Amino acid sequence: MSLYDNIRRVTPYIPGEQPAGKVVKLNTNECPYAPSPRVAEAIAACDADRLRLYPEPDCLSLKKVIAAHYEVKPSEVFIGVGSDDVLALAFLTFFAGQKPVLFPDVTYSFYDVWAKLYAIPYETVPLAADFTLRPEDYAHTNGGIIFANPNAPTGLALPLTGVEEILAKNPESVVIVDEAYVDFGAETALPLLQDYENLVVVRTMSKSRALAGMRIGYAFASTRLIRAMEDVKASINSYTMTTLSLAAGKAAIEDEAYFRETLAKIIKTREETKAALQKLGFFVTESKTNFLFARKPDISAQNLFEGLRERGVYVRYFKKPRIDEHLRITIGTDEEMTRLLEELKCLCIKLR
Amino acid sequence: MSLYDNIRRVTPYIPGEQPAGKVVKLNTNECPYAPSPRVAEAIAACDADRLRLYPEPDCLSLKKVIAAHYEVKPSEVFIGVGSDDVLALAFLTFFAGQKPVLFPDVTYSFYDVWAKLYAIPYETVPLAADFTLRPEDYAHTNGGIIFANPNAPTGLALPLTGVEEILAKNPESVVIVDEAYVDFGAETALPLLQDYENLVVVRTMSKSRALAGMRIGYAFASTRLIRAMEDVKASINSYTMTTLSLAAGKAAIEDEAYFRETLAKIIKTREETKAALQKLGFFVTESKTNFLFARKPDISAQNLFEGLRERGVYVRYFKKPRIDEHLRITIGTDEEMTRLLEELKCLCIKLR
Repeated sequence: MSLYDNIRRVTPYIPGEQPAGKVVKLNTNECPYAPSPRVAEAIAACDADRLRLYPEPDCLSLKKVIAAHYEVKPSEVFIGVGSDDVLALAFLTFFAGQKPVLFPDVTYSFYDVWAKLYAIPYETVPLAADFTLRPEDYAHTNGGIIFANPNAPTGLALPLTGVEEILAKNPESVVIVDEAYVDFGAETALPLLQDYENLVVVRTMSKSRALAGMRIGYAFASTRLIRAMEDVKASINSYTMTTLSLAAGKAAIEDEAYFRETLAKIIKTREETKAALQKLGFFVTESKTNFLFARKPDISAQNLFEGLRERGVYVRYFKKPRIDEHLRITIGTDEEMTRLLEELKCLCIKLR
Repeated sequence: MSLYDNIRRVTPYIPGEQPAGKVVKLNTNECPYAPSPRVAEAIAACDADRLRLYPEPDCLSLKKVIAAHYEVKPSEVFIGVGSDDVLALAFLTFFAGQKPVLFPDVTYSFYDVWAKLYAIPYETVPLAADFTLRPEDYAHTNGGIIFANPNAPTGLALPLTGVEEILAKNPESVVIVDEAYVDFGAETALPLLQDYENLVVVRTMSKSRALAGMRIGYAFASTRLIRAMEDVKASINSYTMTTLSLAAGKAAIEDEAYFRETLAKIIKTREETKAALQKLGFFVTESKTNFLFARKPDISAQNLFEGLRERGVYVRYFKKPRIDEHLRITIGTDEEMTRLLEELKCLCIKLR
């Protein structure tokens, strides 16, 4: 018997690198534009003396702002420390049965990490050869379902009819739709909330609201499901959101004009970059996110990834089955994408 | 089979009330004084554009500041979203065996909540009649030990020799010493860190550093134990600390003079309030914390609690075995304590 025998052994999720210094950072799907100016104002308006007090219980003021914006009830909103916190809590709360939870074989690589940590049985369901998700593959016995829509790292979106098919076929399972990237052009499942009590929709302010540094994620579901998440959350940590995160989140949601403007810029840059990559001979999926998923049939993705890295351009490369010939490239500013394309042009000549 | 069958059922921890409006709030052990002025400066100095990026990985800059201050290595420091987050992760990481974890019967009421949530077997060990912890009671087979020092809500501290006795008798168990209140006058276990590889010391910036609103907790242990906590944390959420919390935490630790001054004021007020309560006929434990644990033999604590509440003075009352005749009273400003004493004087006459 040793001191170390009772310690939990895990295989943690490895996030994208966070290099310091002057690099072109297109590897963790951050927003290239600053958050709304109202965020800075809201933070500056917080009296420092308030920080000696615990934050507002239940995050109610932020819940109210989110609920009003998305036309749901505050009791149908959950708030956490980024969507990873929300998703981890949702796994712990909703996937407590014995049957396997289903998710795609190619998707956000945190899903199996949470399942393993919480000893949740799971089964991966292969995407089609073109990386699309087939709703009919999610009709067999399960203890819950989760998928990202749009999916990462493929960027592909499932139409609302497909989401509804999965919900309708699984009335006894909680179905989590991870909509981290939905603002960039996919259809949200939110309109299905009133008809499907098994639906949980998860969002983040890290991407489209440019607030990765303030750690704000949220979820929508029935009052009953949200209550269950709140109870589990309250069994771990009474106060997870800082006073300043609550203030920042409210300000970000309230500035709709700035939000729309930022999204339009990113989508425009995405489509231009996609066309330019295709011109260079890349196959690029139809992304509805703030990243592109691209491969060059004649050049190794790993070599491109490493070559870009040497030149100070960071993109994401997953050495995993089915996707190890792809790069995931975050949409940055126009200047950053020009730089990326220049470096890729050189590398394509060099590596061919 | 119903949708709700796979949902986890828990009994969450109930934190103290957070009343809005003009009340005397002596119920959640917050600091009555603002955080160091350097905290406000550090927050104001953060460029809002940085918030679009994920926070610094590994919280290394804050770890370095904490490590330098407490004379340990950065690899011996863990940082989380308040000490509740740190403690919950420590439970999940270190108490993964089959033998029962030991903690006192009267202590922080979150311990059994975490044990139940993570299905950790546990056994409560009765404190002595005077609420002191007897180290010899922690010598039988166990899968880990946790106790608060000073203890809450009793306020009593175990001398360092007692802490060392528990560590020495349990070389195969991780022993967590929860030092949320240690700055207010108890002996820290930190000097034992180099001799006991089974020691984990947990701290918070919510009390003595006046940063409850920024959610910053930390832990000290061997590099190996901290690594295990980091791996579990990275299996839940890659980034838990906001960019502004990291900045605020550094500033708070660096302002030692302000910290010492705040502590001295609180300790002075505590001793004066204790004497005044004794004059009113209260029995008060020898608190080494920022709260007092007091009872009046001839008056019901619940009646006092409710009477104070009606008069706008919030203290904490636990309707639990052994302590349901006590009040836990946070040390506020001198003005707040004068108000408390006045109300208690009236109530004691009224309720006798």
